[in-house]
Amino acid sequence: MGAPKKRGTQSVAFENPPVLSSWAAVVGPKEGQGPWARDFDWILDDYTIGEKTWEKAESKMLRETVKLAISKGNYQIKDIELMLAGDLLNQIVSTSFAAREIGIPLLGLYGACSTMAESLVIAAMLVDGGFYEKVTASACSHHHTAERQFRFATEQGVQKTPSAQWTATAAGAVVLDRLGSGPRVTCATVGQVIDLGQTDAADMGSAMAPAAAATIKTHFQDLQRPTDYYDLIVTGDLGKVGMALAQQLFVKEGIVPKPNYSDCGVLLYDDSQGVDSGGSGCGCSASMLCGPLLKKMVEGKLNRLLLVATGALMSPTTQFQGETIPAIAHAVAIENQ
Amino acid sequence: MGAPKKRGTQSVAFENPPVLSSWAAVVGPKEGQGPWARDFDWILDDYTIGEKTWEKAESKMLRETVKLAISKGNYQIKDIELMLAGDLLNQIVSTSFAAREIGIPLLGLYGACSTMAESLVIAAMLVDGGFYEKVTASACSHHHTAERQFRFATEQGVQKTPSAQWTATAAGAVVLDRLGSGPRVTCATVGQVIDLGQTDAADMGSAMAPAAAATIKTHFQDLQRPTDYYDLIVTGDLGKVGMALAQQLFVKEGIVPKPNYSDCGVLLYDDSQGVDSGGSGCGCSASMLCGPLLKKMVEGKLNRLLLVATGALMSPTTQFQGETIPAIAHAVAIENQ
Repeated sequence: MGAPKKRGTQSVAFENPPVLSSWAAVVGPKEGQGPWARDFDWILDDYTIGEKTWEKAESKMLRETVKLAISKGNYQIKDIELMLAGDLLNQIVSTSFAAREIGIPLLGLYGACSTMAESLVIAAMLVDGGFYEKVTASACSHHHTAERQFRFATEQGVQKTPSAQWTATAAGAVVLDRLGSGPRVTCATVGQVIDLGQTDAADMGSAMAPAAAATIKTHFQDLQRPTDYYDLIVTGDLGKVGMALAQQLFVKEGIVPKPNYSDCGVLLYDDSQGVDSGGSGCGCSASMLCGPLLKKMVEGKLNRLLLVATGALMSPTTQFQGETIPAIAHAVAIENQ
Repeated sequence: MGAPKKRGTQSVAFENPPVLSSWAAVVGPKEGQGPWARDFDWILDDYTIGEKTWEKAESKMLRETVKLAISKGNYQIKDIELMLAGDLLNQIVSTSFAAREIGIPLLGLYGACSTMAESLVIAAMLVDGGFYEKVTASACSHHHTAERQFRFATEQGVQKTPSAQWTATAAGAVVLDRLGSGPRVTCATVGQVIDLGQTDAADMGSAMAPAAAATIKTHFQDLQRPTDYYDLIVTGDLGKVGMALAQQLFVKEGIVPKPNYSDCGVLLYDDSQGVDSGGSGCGCSASMLCGPLLKKMVEGKLNRLLLVATGALMSPTTQFQGETIPAIAHAVAIENQ
């Protein structure tokens, strides 16, 4: 055994950093009209992809994304020992029904929009811990299933507020391999639930920004890395409103120089696409990671990436019952070595 | 490094089996009138415990159970490095709001009623993998929150079918410690999603029984243990109907001699309590494990226990959309050594 794997209060550093050996990103029609169209593996023609309901389509999208990540790495499904995944639907049914079809043993996760980071953190721990050689980690969301579950059915045409975000129709999946070549998961920080009392479900970016800032601050302290260590720090889906708040918090904490910080919710769409504050949903950071960001790492345009996926942990029921919005953020460092 | 930790296709054996150093079980009034009243740490006086809603009460119950498990082990909350937990509510809000109050970094899980085993499996991997010294794993459910989310609000007084189960108001939590004394988690089997086409949500025991049988069969094959190895194999919450089906499947597969098998859903209540087929909910196996079963292990009445918590992974939405019920079962071996 080398250095201790636990670092500081909330972080871990991997002894044999697992390799991101293969990945895939699938997005919906709208996301395919955004700035990163060339970087996704599949842009859906419509929101049902041959299924009778949006929910079935979401599950199919996740299933196909995981299968694509596996096949792109020249793996067979039987080579993959474990599936870690989650989504936004009640009882994470997109995940469970996808796993039913794929047939890989499943550990289901719920971290709202932080799920891609959560699944990567656990996957990396289980591979580095010596339990598995090859594990897949994934997450997805679907605009229309989320709208009708969390807000108003799309057909109602309810007007949105400027701080609202657009749940992405998107999925991302990776295969983490103990061996092989590719970017590696080198360290990670598991977030605490942070709740500063925000109650507006139409402004989840502001509810999540403090969790992102707390996790990033802890990450640098725990790992004793300088705050300019990463080429890019990218939060999950704070959107414009939440990102602006996060930047204020960063300045206050003295943790991040401005040029190397961005947010998947801000990046995913063009300003012209009418998404108000930006993108959201588990699929937002999952598809940005498994599409454009990992492509940039392979091309050497990015060498040190810190993904800080953020999640708002409320439900419609807790909102109705007058609760504030708790949030969480998990950070995963991905590096070319 | 010793023997490989991965065993067979779906199982792992721990190199330094983590210790169940402390635990707590809290149950509702009805569960407190059952056969195990003396073995629980706290029997709630009512279903709200001073909260305005059942949902808030469920979250408080989980929070207090986790805190009790920590304090019973003479730990401080700050000693515990990670909280793994899940529940049945949409977006697992009982867990997220409990974690907000407790303040331990959270990895949220969803495995329906298999959650106690899922959290134990991951907790044991993360401790044995060298990432943490002390981790808490927990799960909970509440009868009235589950009824109104999954079926009919209690106030409607809808009649139940004989195959229906009674969602337990209950929570269980353990502290897993790398060091110390107590029963240990020695090995585990992560389940695949199994769906034999059952569609009746009023008979989830039958939907889950094949998953339980598949995981138990795989467990014995992977670990190369004789089928009479355990003093007790206990499934999560199949209830009478599901347990009878599981026993038929065991006989068919030649895997389990009858006397050492039972089910937490059958055990939790007396026949006189009007719970039809038996108990269910994440809290059913969580409270049976953290109450009567671990007590029997400490007393030496049980030395080798295999907990096989089972989960039905559907949602009301998938039921409405005509889907069948996928199920999963994870097995955790707990042994006095």
